[in-house]
This record gives sequence, C-alpha cells and structure tokens, in this order.
Amino acid sequence: MRKNLIVPAGMKDMLPGEAARKRELESALMAHFSSWGYREVGTSALEYYDVVARDGMDPAEVFKLIDREGQILALRPDVTTPIARMTATRLKEETLPLRLCYTGSTFRYEKVQVGRQREFTQAGVELIGSDSLMADIEVLVMAIEAMELAGLDSFRMGIGEINVTEGFLKELLPEEEAAEARDLIVSKDFVGLEALLGRSADPARAEVFLSLVTQNGGAEILDEIGRYSDRPAYRAAVAGLRTLARVLEEYGYLNRVFFDFSILRNFRYYTGLVFEGYAGGLGHPVCGGGRYDRLLGSFGYDAPAVGFALGLERALLAHGQDRSRENPDILILGEDYGEILKTARTLRQEGRKVEIDLTSVSLEEARQSADSRGIGRIYVVEGGNGHGK
Amino acid sequence: MRKNLIVPAGMKDMLPGEAARKRELESALMAHFSSWGYREVGTSALEYYDVVARDGMDPAEVFKLIDREGQILALRPDVTTPIARMTATRLKEETLPLRLCYTGSTFRYEKVQVGRQREFTQAGVELIGSDSLMADIEVLVMAIEAMELAGLDSFRMGIGEINVTEGFLKELLPEEEAAEARDLIVSKDFVGLEALLGRSADPARAEVFLSLVTQNGGAEILDEIGRYSDRPAYRAAVAGLRTLARVLEEYGYLNRVFFDFSILRNFRYYTGLVFEGYAGGLGHPVCGGGRYDRLLGSFGYDAPAVGFALGLERALLAHGQDRSRENPDILILGEDYGEILKTARTLRQEGRKVEIDLTSVSLEEARQSADSRGIGRIYVVEGGNGHGK
Repeated sequence: MRKNLIVPAGMKDMLPGEAARKRELESALMAHFSSWGYREVGTSALEYYDVVARDGMDPAEVFKLIDREGQILALRPDVTTPIARMTATRLKEETLPLRLCYTGSTFRYEKVQVGRQREFTQAGVELIGSDSLMADIEVLVMAIEAMELAGLDSFRMGIGEINVTEGFLKELLPEEEAAEARDLIVSKDFVGLEALLGRSADPARAEVFLSLVTQNGGAEILDEIGRYSDRPAYRAAVAGLRTLARVLEEYGYLNRVFFDFSILRNFRYYTGLVFEGYAGGLGHPVCGGGRYDRLLGSFGYDAPAVGFALGLERALLAHGQDRSRENPDILILGEDYGEILKTARTLRQEGRKVEIDLTSVSLEEARQSADSRGIGRIYVVEGGNGHGK
Repeated sequence: MRKNLIVPAGMKDMLPGEAARKRELESALMAHFSSWGYREVGTSALEYYDVVARDGMDPAEVFKLIDREGQILALRPDVTTPIARMTATRLKEETLPLRLCYTGSTFRYEKVQVGRQREFTQAGVELIGSDSLMADIEVLVMAIEAMELAGLDSFRMGIGEINVTEGFLKELLPEEEAAEARDLIVSKDFVGLEALLGRSADPARAEVFLSLVTQNGGAEILDEIGRYSDRPAYRAAVAGLRTLARVLEEYGYLNRVFFDFSILRNFRYYTGLVFEGYAGGLGHPVCGGGRYDRLLGSFGYDAPAVGFALGLERALLAHGQDRSRENPDILILGEDYGEILKTARTLRQEGRKVEIDLTSVSLEEARQSADSRGIGRIYVVEGGNGHGK
C-alpha cells in the first residue's frame, strides 16, 4: 500500500462504533471521578523534554522533536508528570489535598504488539497533598470501581509496595546492583535475578528475597512476608497493607486483589503502594498506579501524592465486542428542505436521532435503505415549494 | 522561571473549571452531531507527513518529527485530511453518503497570540458522498446550531463560494498570479490585490472583481453579484447561494449569515461553498468549513464531501467566563474508613458528588472547610473499629 494511505506503526484509526464505545467509557470514568470530588484538568500533548525526563523512562521510548528555537520537545509518555508540573506552578495556592482527574493521549515508542499502541488514551486521577493510608485506599478503590465501570468482569488487581521490595533490595545489594535487580524484577526475569543475587548477596537473605518476589496471594501471605525483615519502613509498609486488606474486606473488594511484591511499575517515581489491574487475558495491565511522594518536590513543590491511570484502548480491547448502537431512529425525506429541517429539529428536540435522506428517489427506496440499516421509522414531509434537492 | 517548569510556547494547561467547561461543550457537540445521524470516528495525532502535506498549508506551520525508520511524521494540522485518508482506505465498503463526526487535538506552528494556540481541539463533521446543495445546507445549519450550543449569542456566519471568487480569478489572471491574488485575499490585503490587478488584469474586469471581494452583506447582494460573470459554473454557484438563502430564511437562520466572497479558508482543498463563524470580538473564526470534492480522490477514492470544524478553545474564549459548578455536594468524615466508603458509595449512587475528608481533626474544622468551599452538607459516619486514619 502507498505510504500516504497508511498510518505510522503503532497508530490506529478508530472506526464508527469503536469511537463511540471509547467516548462512552471516557464519559463514565469522568463522571465516576467527579462523584468522588475530583476536578478535571488537562495539559498539552507536548512538553519540554526536561519535564518528562524525570519519569525514569528509557529515553528511546519518548517521541522527541526539536522546535524552531532548538529546544527538545517530547510527546508526553504519561500525564502524571505534566500534572505534577502544573500543580507545582499553577495550583500552589489551592488548599490541600487537591483532587484532580484527566483524560488524554499519551505516546510511547514501544515495540508494536496487541494491546500496545504507540499513542493511547489514559484516564486517571491524582490525589495530591495527603500521605495517609486513607488516600492510598481511596485511589485503589477508585481504580477497582473504574475496572468495574469498564465492564471487565473477571479482572484482578495486583498490589505491591516499593518500601517492601526496594527496601529489602537496598539492604541486600549495593546501589548499582540493586538497580539492576530492580530492572530484572520489572521484566519478571527471576532466573537472571537469582544469578545476580548468587554473585553479590548473602545467600540466606537472597533466598528470603526470592521468596518475597516470586510468591503472590491473598492477605494471608502478609503475615509471613511481615517476618522477612525488621527494618521499620518495611514493617510499617506491611502493617499498612494489613489495614488496607481489612478495609477492602469490609468494602467487599478483597476478592478483587492479590499481593505481588514483584510489582514495581515502569515509572521510577513511585515511593509506596503500587498496583496494576489485569483483565481479559491481556499480557499488560489495563490500569496502574501508586504513591509518588517525591515527584512534585522535583518541581519545587514538596507534596505527597497518589494516583492511577486506566488505558482506554486496552480496557475496550479486554472488554471485547462492540455493544453500542449508533443507528439513527428516524430517516426523514420530502421535497421542501426548509420544512424537512424544521420537522427534523422538532424530532431531535424530542431526543431522536434523525438522518436526512439525501439520495432516495422514491419512498420505496428510502424504506429499503432504512430496513437495511435497522432504522425503525421514516418521516415523509409533505408539500414543497421548489427548495428541495 | 526554570525551563522545566513551563510549557512550550503555544501550549496551554487547562485548570480546574476550564477543563470541565471544555468537556461540557465537547459532549454537547457530539450529542448534537449524533442527533443528525453522524457517527464518531477518530484518528491518531501522528500521520505520515505525506498525508497532511496535501492540505496546502505552509510546511513551516506543521510540527514534524523523524521516526526510527527515517520517515517524516507530522502532528496533524487538521482532522479532515486524516478522515479522508481513513475513509478512502477503511470505509470504502460503507454505503454513501457517509456521515462522520470527530473531536481531537490539532497542531499548528503559528505565531502565538490570543485565541491562537499551537495545540487546539477541534470538533467537526464530514458528510461524504453527496454533491447536493442539501448536503451543503445540512452542514452549514449544523455549524450554526453548534455556535448556538457553544452559547455564542451574537455570532455571525460568513459565507463564500470558491466557484465564484476563484472562478472569477481564473478568468482574470494567469495561474501563477491568480494564486498570488488568492493569498492576498486570504490575508485581506486589498491594497496589494489592487496593485496586482492593476499590473496584470483587464481594468474594467478588475474593478468588478474588487467590488466582488470587498463588499459583503445579506442575500440582497446576490442579485448584483450574479450579474458579474456569465460563466456557467459562476452562475450555478450564485443560483445555489440564492436557494440556500431561501432555505435559511424559512428555517429562521438568514439573520445569522452574510455573504463575503473574500472568504477562501486557509486550506487549499475547498471546491465550493466555504463558511466561517465569528464571535466575541476574536480576530479569527471560531468555526469554519465547506465543500471539498477532490480531497478523497487524492487518496484514490473519488467522492464529493462537505464538512466543518469548530475550535473548542476559541469558542470557550469567545464565550467568556466560567459558569460551571464543580464543588462536591457532600463532605464525609468519621473514624471507620470501610464504613465511610460504603456510605459514600450509597450517596454517589444517588447522584451526589461526595468528597472524603482526609485532613480535618474535628467536626468543627470540617465545617469550616466545607463552608469555605461552598459544600452544603457534611456527613459524619459514626462508630469505628480502628481502620480509620
């Protein structure tokens, strides 16, 4: 196919039906966020590269361009960092905690595969200015409800904790090797991890760590995990997870979650709770989020924060077939276009979708057209003064 | 300010309130388009540069980047051309006429000034596969209704015709000078136009042409304009405008429009009716559109088409102050976070916006916080089993 007829790799056209489903989901999510007291904000798709560089993403995964002044711009790979920048500059006077939500395109130069586009839409929330466990739980519960809203009946939410996994790693390995181990865990390369630990870590502690990052399960594993380390930050994190599990049980969501301390997320800004939602047999999470207490500080505004984002295209892919109905209710035709317009306006004001027939030469032809497209009613506007087609 | 704290020139953050107003307008417009039988589609922000190059825009106004394969990509400067590409490749099997609508970001590297951002959101429609005057009128009426929906009470819609203005120009000047004259008309440089015509055109005809492009007014000017040329395409175009005026009169919209044959639009693909909507004292149109019968053919799918797009940011700017209310209805607090969550869920299911208090240490403090933010009600959840903050 000629190059001017195709879209660049990883980009996607949304056909009729697909676009309507996406809009429905987006509207439902924004109404959900608003019902929790979150206010919508937006940022541009283009940022200075310096702003998004602090994500800790592989720079090769960022779409970059040079502007006329020679500055490097980037198409944002996520929305959390731009919102942190905006909050630190334009919303410093607002009372904390600040509850913000958004939806918008993000761009990552990833290997193209099913469920991974290079442009994808995220909808999410940021709860800024509270370091309480209640804030963590609020955002986690909102994420679970968002997965339900997306119609993903069989989803599960995996929960990890940076202070548990990376806290333990710091105890086990020097900084550089700890970073290497982190990358192996993110890519679920436990063979590589075992080899690395075998070279550099105390064997007994290494075995405990491997047990920590390779098991996952319900709240029952927290007791055992809690015995793995005596460091205060570790113990406080596990205690927080126990409370979180009790609240989720009371709220009826404990069966939706499992604990998995290999979950670290691919953005480096997380500092506490992290979570990922899985559904529909996709190999990548549909949603993800967590606590990031130092990101706003990197923009000069020291405030703790927690948030999550859901990928709309992935959620729709996981959910499967189109169920939305987009056909008009009424096909309208006649000779007098002014009268047709006025009758159609009245019907639209009553809430009907009305399509004006531009092609049929007879009522019979219009009937066939309406039948073939599932349009239930035909309106013929009588009379005519020569303004018609 | 440090560069990592600001956004690139022409890019804009949307603060709370602004984003909600934009979403409200976008939702209202998409419902409006749907009520006329239009189905939503979407395309990626990134296209191969070859695709958008046919717009006839100044290449310096297009944001370009090079991908890893060395291909030149572009951030789309409009959505009409990507939809034409999509229709010609993915929607060729659909019955014509095809009614599509969209909303999305577009990017132009323009001089930064009020009402002209470099990233801006457009919402619009494309009616593909009908060359009838009724199709022109349908799209024009939808544009007028869109301006009303945007709350722009004092807007006016200017109407031009490519077959009138450029048709006359072709008669008057050789191709190259006609193109030069076109650019002068687009930039409303009538002094430069007069000088050009003085050098190259028949003086009597030049005077008639200057009269054509410098007067504007209601349907009453069409009779005089009709006498300016005997070319069949010119006469047919003016006759079409007379019918259009009669239909608009019948529909009650004639007072919204004026005829102005200096309107040519800055995209080169227009071939017939063109129009622009002005409001709120902005120097640039809030919406614009027209007929483009050859654009789809340039993608190998020969079909006439007509459409328009409205700039959401400009419409909001023209409309003025924020009128939307985003505060929660209820502030909820207590000791037992599981109970708080459940009570809040019940209230949200009843349609209330409920914010969970994360900070107040006393009911009195919560009352003050609610009062200062205009939140009318406070809910205190009694009891507690130690799961709270």
